[in-house]
Amino acid sequence: MGDEYVVGVDFGTLSGRAVVVRVSDGEQVADAVVDYPHGVLEESLPDGTRLGADWALQVPDDYREVLRVAVPRALQESGVDPAQVVGIATDFTACTMVPTLADGTPLDELAELAGRPHAYTKLWKHHAAQPQADRVNRLAEERGEAWLPRYGGLISSEWELAKGLQLFEEDRDAYDRMERFVEAADWIVWQLCGTYVRNACSAGYKGVLQEGRYPSAAFLEGLAEGFGGFVADKLHQPIGRLGARAGGLGARAACWTGLPEGIAVAVGNVDAHVTAPAVRAVEPGQMVAIMGTSTCHVMSADVLREVPGMCGVVDGGIVEGLFGYEAGQSGVGDIFAWFVEHGVPEAYAVAAREAGESLHEHLTRLGEKQAVGEHGLVALDWHSGNRSVLVDHQLSGLVLGLTLATRPEDVYRALHEATAFGTRVIVETFAAAGVPVDELVMAGGLTRNRVLMQLYCDVLGLPLSVAASAQAPALGSAIHAAVAAGRYADVPAAAAAMGRVERHAYLPDATRSAGYDDLFALYRELHDHFGRATPLMRRLRTLRYQARR
Amino acid sequence: MGDEYVVGVDFGTLSGRAVVVRVSDGEQVADAVVDYPHGVLEESLPDGTRLGADWALQVPDDYREVLRVAVPRALQESGVDPAQVVGIATDFTACTMVPTLADGTPLDELAELAGRPHAYTKLWKHHAAQPQADRVNRLAEERGEAWLPRYGGLISSEWELAKGLQLFEEDRDAYDRMERFVEAADWIVWQLCGTYVRNACSAGYKGVLQEGRYPSAAFLEGLAEGFGGFVADKLHQPIGRLGARAGGLGARAACWTGLPEGIAVAVGNVDAHVTAPAVRAVEPGQMVAIMGTSTCHVMSADVLREVPGMCGVVDGGIVEGLFGYEAGQSGVGDIFAWFVEHGVPEAYAVAAREAGESLHEHLTRLGEKQAVGEHGLVALDWHSGNRSVLVDHQLSGLVLGLTLATRPEDVYRALHEATAFGTRVIVETFAAAGVPVDELVMAGGLTRNRVLMQLYCDVLGLPLSVAASAQAPALGSAIHAAVAAGRYADVPAAAAAMGRVERHAYLPDATRSAGYDDLFALYRELHDHFGRATPLMRRLRTLRYQARR
Repeated sequence: MGDEYVVGVDFGTLSGRAVVVRVSDGEQVADAVVDYPHGVLEESLPDGTRLGADWALQVPDDYREVLRVAVPRALQESGVDPAQVVGIATDFTACTMVPTLADGTPLDELAELAGRPHAYTKLWKHHAAQPQADRVNRLAEERGEAWLPRYGGLISSEWELAKGLQLFEEDRDAYDRMERFVEAADWIVWQLCGTYVRNACSAGYKGVLQEGRYPSAAFLEGLAEGFGGFVADKLHQPIGRLGARAGGLGARAACWTGLPEGIAVAVGNVDAHVTAPAVRAVEPGQMVAIMGTSTCHVMSADVLREVPGMCGVVDGGIVEGLFGYEAGQSGVGDIFAWFVEHGVPEAYAVAAREAGESLHEHLTRLGEKQAVGEHGLVALDWHSGNRSVLVDHQLSGLVLGLTLATRPEDVYRALHEATAFGTRVIVETFAAAGVPVDELVMAGGLTRNRVLMQLYCDVLGLPLSVAASAQAPALGSAIHAAVAAGRYADVPAAAAAMGRVERHAYLPDATRSAGYDDLFALYRELHDHFGRATPLMRRLRTLRYQARR
Repeated sequence: MGDEYVVGVDFGTLSGRAVVVRVSDGEQVADAVVDYPHGVLEESLPDGTRLGADWALQVPDDYREVLRVAVPRALQESGVDPAQVVGIATDFTACTMVPTLADGTPLDELAELAGRPHAYTKLWKHHAAQPQADRVNRLAEERGEAWLPRYGGLISSEWELAKGLQLFEEDRDAYDRMERFVEAADWIVWQLCGTYVRNACSAGYKGVLQEGRYPSAAFLEGLAEGFGGFVADKLHQPIGRLGARAGGLGARAACWTGLPEGIAVAVGNVDAHVTAPAVRAVEPGQMVAIMGTSTCHVMSADVLREVPGMCGVVDGGIVEGLFGYEAGQSGVGDIFAWFVEHGVPEAYAVAAREAGESLHEHLTRLGEKQAVGEHGLVALDWHSGNRSVLVDHQLSGLVLGLTLATRPEDVYRALHEATAFGTRVIVETFAAAGVPVDELVMAGGLTRNRVLMQLYCDVLGLPLSVAASAQAPALGSAIHAAVAAGRYADVPAAAAAMGRVERHAYLPDATRSAGYDDLFALYRELHDHFGRATPLMRRLRTLRYQARR
């Protein structure tokens, strides 16, 4: 009899990835990716119906496609006998919301709702509910709602409440037809095992569930007449703790995936949070930063603290028995990509091609030998606004210190540094609130840039560990599958055996760290000035909106 | 008997230009340009001797080359009989200082001083005397020197005093050999007519001559022991008013130029100031902006006021009988050029080539249709520091409002706007000090960009006139030649007949002006914050210096 295996499936923004992982040691034996056939709907529905500004929708059957194609493909490639697979688990973008009937059928699959944008799944980056979010925040503050400080003082337009209120107000008929408003993270588990269990993670971070209570009916009714039943009618559902078994694999899903009927299906999870066990960062003081287009920070702690400007704190939100904290930076890799696409001259493009490098590699190489501060620049990394700790998407980016001697590699490095300074602000804010960070564990695509990693290490002045798996979220799901299948006592035990991390891959250099302390003081001054002291950036944004009208 | 003509010669940073102009109406019939054979010496002397940081030297014989080549060539091209030429006048960069013997021989032409940097001519942009300038300013403030407010409170490292003190301290032997320290503007006139007359313009603006008095010997001795005789020994000389006859063309210069011996040679002048009559802007309220790499502002007024941060005010400094004011922006065209070279991607370079446009034209066209404020950006134009009104070369450039939607044409337009806002700060500072500006007259290479001109007009909310001659400084010199030759009673009379301007070529658009008022308020806030309230930019500059060491 051979080894046992589990399957982890990571549902991203544009594609889903399945991995086959050995239960005993986390060895990943195969993986397969499937792009969502419909991708992200931002301009129009499949039938051509136009969408408004800041909409972002998806088609839930695309998620099933990942089960139908990526899982069997990974299995086949692995050479593993399906009978050796003992469980499956999934992680998802969040907050991504599927409106369904009572049996889980997505509304967009009903012929009579064709052409109705609100029948589709609202992806995490659907930002058209900002007016609703603003009202949620105003009312919550007026009423002194106890849950508000648990979210750093502000609820995001990305979350369940704002998205649900937008649906209620803009398409009352679809709202009334909708029997459940389901996190995609839970919908996919429902598809797998036929049981709808809300996972503790997204219910807490995105559903505003604190100590067993959602926002009250009175509060909801205060938002809009008739909206008071939103939680009771559309959201309420038993909560599953992370790593628990949601059910057994159903016949239909067994057919899709080629996996044995009845194997363990784990409670759903969120892509960022599931990464923590994948990199063995489940102890207090270990902050995981998943660095890609944006950066998400997750960390567990044994204390409950109100950290100003964090995204949220949830009991058992990352691992059972600890408080899980989340923070984020709205723009990181996308700022670097934007600069490389729009701010680097032809001569550099030519030189990079001749050197066989990407422009990212070229600029990194040109800038890496500089002493700290040599470029004379300091930047603010708010090109997509600021998620933590200012929580203000009207803020914008800034580059200061430009001279006629400034070159593209200088600005590129200053942008790298700005995002590292942004992380440092978060780390220092957590520490000041009584949640100290002792180690950073980096995951995500940007970890491939070793110069950038050393820069973060020097700026933070902390040892930096790096995910040793390129598919850390999928590995994190596999770990949860192993726990759900009963192969480990709990997630930390499974993480210790299956997680993959290069511990302390980078150590700070004292001289560079001291230099960065000086530069960071300037960043901090700019951060507090433009983030708090003056509304200049908001006024500029207002002028821009007026000009566009 | 045919028309009468005059020759004007404009000595720039890299070349000299001669024009032949009809006395009766200012018609320019020919021009010729000669590049200086040695250009600007910034790295080393012609013999290979290395120069320090921020040095900028020239070889005075290069100026004679312009007389030997450009004047005869322009004459020949014009078809004018040399006997029809009644006068010649010149204008020069300033403050550009030639160390000479008592007969005007430049020290660099003495074999025994070969390889001695201080024997060469210090070009206006020689900035290595900043430590000396700092000491001049400290001492002048301590002693409460009456002349200091006439220069907005600060003396520049570019001027005679700082350059002379550097020479004194770094090469005492060359200083002792030097019998005169001569403005190139006056040296070239000395070469033409054999008489050394100091022109009132550079003596006032660059030589700190106010009401007939230079800084006192006691002040000079306080700067350095033994330096007390600097003015008496090396600078003092009769002052010639602008438009006066310095002498008659000498035999040697007649031979060089092909012009008749004995014709009028006008007192020297400065390139910016001589432009005012060329564009008929010799009345109070008419500010001339000469826009090129940097921008120089000159304006006459009938009142003497102390304008904070101006470059200087000189009685008769532009035209006799009025107080001439000067201000400046250290970076304008060079900021646009820097951005185009280092901040615009390959795709734009390709598109511009395909459209048969320069990148400047391409970016201007892409940005011009935007409504005011639509790009959401505001910039500070301090990439070369700030000359007026902050007088701080430790300041640096800034771009604020960047988002992932920001495109190169947005930044380019924001930089255009920033320089216009910089001009507006100067105009408002003059007005607040009791020297109102009613009209702006633009000259220099940047006037070719009509979109930029309209932008300045809208930002300033003032009618904009534009020089109608592409060689306005040389025309201004020709006007002075006509006055020196007695063909007009004074410079204003000659300017009225010979000056060329497109009066009120641009008028402000009320809607756009109102939009720019809003954006300017943000610029002004940034200007005052980073220019006055916080030393952040200086701290950043210090970190840069430290890192480079």
